[in-house]
Amino acid sequence: MGAVEPVEAGFQPRFAGYAARVRDSFARQGLMAHLGAELTVVEPGHVEIELPYAETLSQQHGFFHGGATAAIADSAAGYAAFTLMPEDASVLTIEFKINLLAPAQGDRLIARGRVKRAGRVLSVCTADVSVRRDGDERLCASLLTTMMAMHGRSDYA
Amino acid sequence: MGAVEPVEAGFQPRFAGYAARVRDSFARQGLMAHLGAELTVVEPGHVEIELPYAETLSQQHGFFHGGATAAIADSAAGYAAFTLMPEDASVLTIEFKINLLAPAQGDRLIARGRVKRAGRVLSVCTADVSVRRDGDERLCASLLTTMMAMHGRSDYA
Amino acid sequence: MGAVEPVEAGFQPRFAGYAARVRDSFARQGLMAHLGAELTVVEPGHVEIELPYAETLSQQHGFFHGGATAAIADSAAGYAAFTLMPEDASVLTIEFKINLLAPAQGDRLIARGRVKRAGRVLSVCTADVSVRRDGDERLCASLLTTMMAMHGRSDYA
Amino acid sequence: MGAVEPVEAGFQPRFAGYAARVRDSFARQGLMAHLGAELTVVEPGHVEIELPYAETLSQQHGFFHGGATAAIADSAAGYAAFTLMPEDASVLTIEFKINLLAPAQGDRLIARGRVKRAGRVLSVCTADVSVRRDGDERLCASLLTTMMAMHGRSDYA
Repeated sequence: MGAVEPVEAGFQPRFAGYAARVRDSFARQGLMAHLGAELTVVEPGHVEIELPYAETLSQQHGFFHGGATAAIADSAAGYAAFTLMPEDASVLTIEFKINLLAPAQGDRLIARGRVKRAGRVLSVCTADVSVRRDGDERLCASLLTTMMAMHGRSDYA
Repeated sequence: MGAVEPVEAGFQPRFAGYAARVRDSFARQGLMAHLGAELTVVEPGHVEIELPYAETLSQQHGFFHGGATAAIADSAAGYAAFTLMPEDASVLTIEFKINLLAPAQGDRLIARGRVKRAGRVLSVCTADVSVRRDGDERLCASLLTTMMAMHGRSDYA
Repeated sequence: MGAVEPVEAGFQPRFAGYAARVRDSFARQGLMAHLGAELTVVEPGHVEIELPYAETLSQQHGFFHGGATAAIADSAAGYAAFTLMPEDASVLTIEFKINLLAPAQGDRLIARGRVKRAGRVLSVCTADVSVRRDGDERLCASLLTTMMAMHGRSDYA
Repeated sequence: MGAVEPVEAGFQPRFAGYAARVRDSFARQGLMAHLGAELTVVEPGHVEIELPYAETLSQQHGFFHGGATAAIADSAAGYAAFTLMPEDASVLTIEFKINLLAPAQGDRLIARGRVKRAGRVLSVCTADVSVRRDGDERLCASLLTTMMAMHGRSDYA
């Protein structure tokens, strides 16, 4: 991948059913349903997850809790990596780092996960999270993460 | 703070009501209640939060979701920092990094947040998270984070 | 800052001498000279540093050492933040996280630091590092960092 | 590894020549020699590297540059992981995160790398860095990192 080209250029899925596989996997994440998260975009190397505000997602000042922000950013980045993995693989978060840039105060969070480098075993992804408020969007978090492909272990195992 | 001494040595709270303040703040975090998290230890520079397993906390393989692990680790570390802040301050997560060391498969997570350095404005904390299964405990995540004290803004504002 | 707009849109320096200040500060970093690093671009919210290969920069396999990569990425990101700070401030690295995406094998590293969010006290920046080899460029590292403005303390203090 | 036991308990090297292998590898890191770093401790899961102050290691205020601090912390943590790897493996840094806790102002840095979890492929390590000044030691940085074992590729390849 060239550093001076757009990040997503040239990502080719290696499994034709990549989008359905992400949707199935997302549906099995109990936490995403419990938080009320919605999977809105699944493209090669790019996945988006949205989270409407609820009091059940708040920290002590009433904004979205950083843990909720991190949860959808982690899932968006992980599934972005998963879109590029072969049929017999599943995806595992090795680690992530997230900066909370601004108070996540608003009606809805949007996490946009993107693959930065897709390796055979390890992939590096980012996720930017914006908060929507009265129609405006504001960047509120940025995540950088390492994902691992577990070959020979399907996501249903 | 000496690097060769125990991390917690010598932490003196600057607000006598530090423990009640942490408990009040935790009770106002909607996300902690929604996840089912329990605040179990509040000491100067040291806070623990536990999370019993439920399907509502799972990732696609049925283990604890990394986002749930991160949420309690973030709160434990943040409240560890908060125990050392003066009366007129509140606490804000600037950023955190978490390594998921092993599958979080078990009955209960225990996040142990500890202050590594307490500054006037910025504090650096860690949190180790263990998963309990059939009576055994296993380290499953480790977090390193930067917390900020917002002076002149109480936690209730 | 809107998350869907280009990251650099609208960055206005608050000190007209921002570029000379960065060049002066870089010249006083003994480590940059010792490594052989060159400051090549200084724009509002965007700084680039290059590092020609030498055996004195290697890890055990002869590639650029991750510490050298991190050093120029840290400086590029920090100076990107510094371009946006007022005259009476200096810049301090709070923390950074770097992913080494590919072996840094080549003739030259190019670190491109960019501001993601410029706050009064804290700024969040990224730096992508590419390695050039036989005329091709390849992304080899990505950094996400928190920088702090120390107001009332000029960079020469 | 139990979370409530000392981190180093029970680390057994899988290659009897682990210490000589670390010393050989360190000697081939051109950057460590160029910075003036010294390898002082090599034990199973625990490696220390020291760095005497020189102007060639400074940032703009004359303290140790964060890049120099990161370089020895990265090497100490990586070699701590390497002590536990089998004979046919070499070690690679996947990513690291470092918090700079206090100005690194003093005569000497001491980086203490320790393994937190040793996996077959991935290991998670920490490194605390202290700065010595007039005989006192002060914690100045803390690193959390992911290291990878490359099996079938000796460190000399």
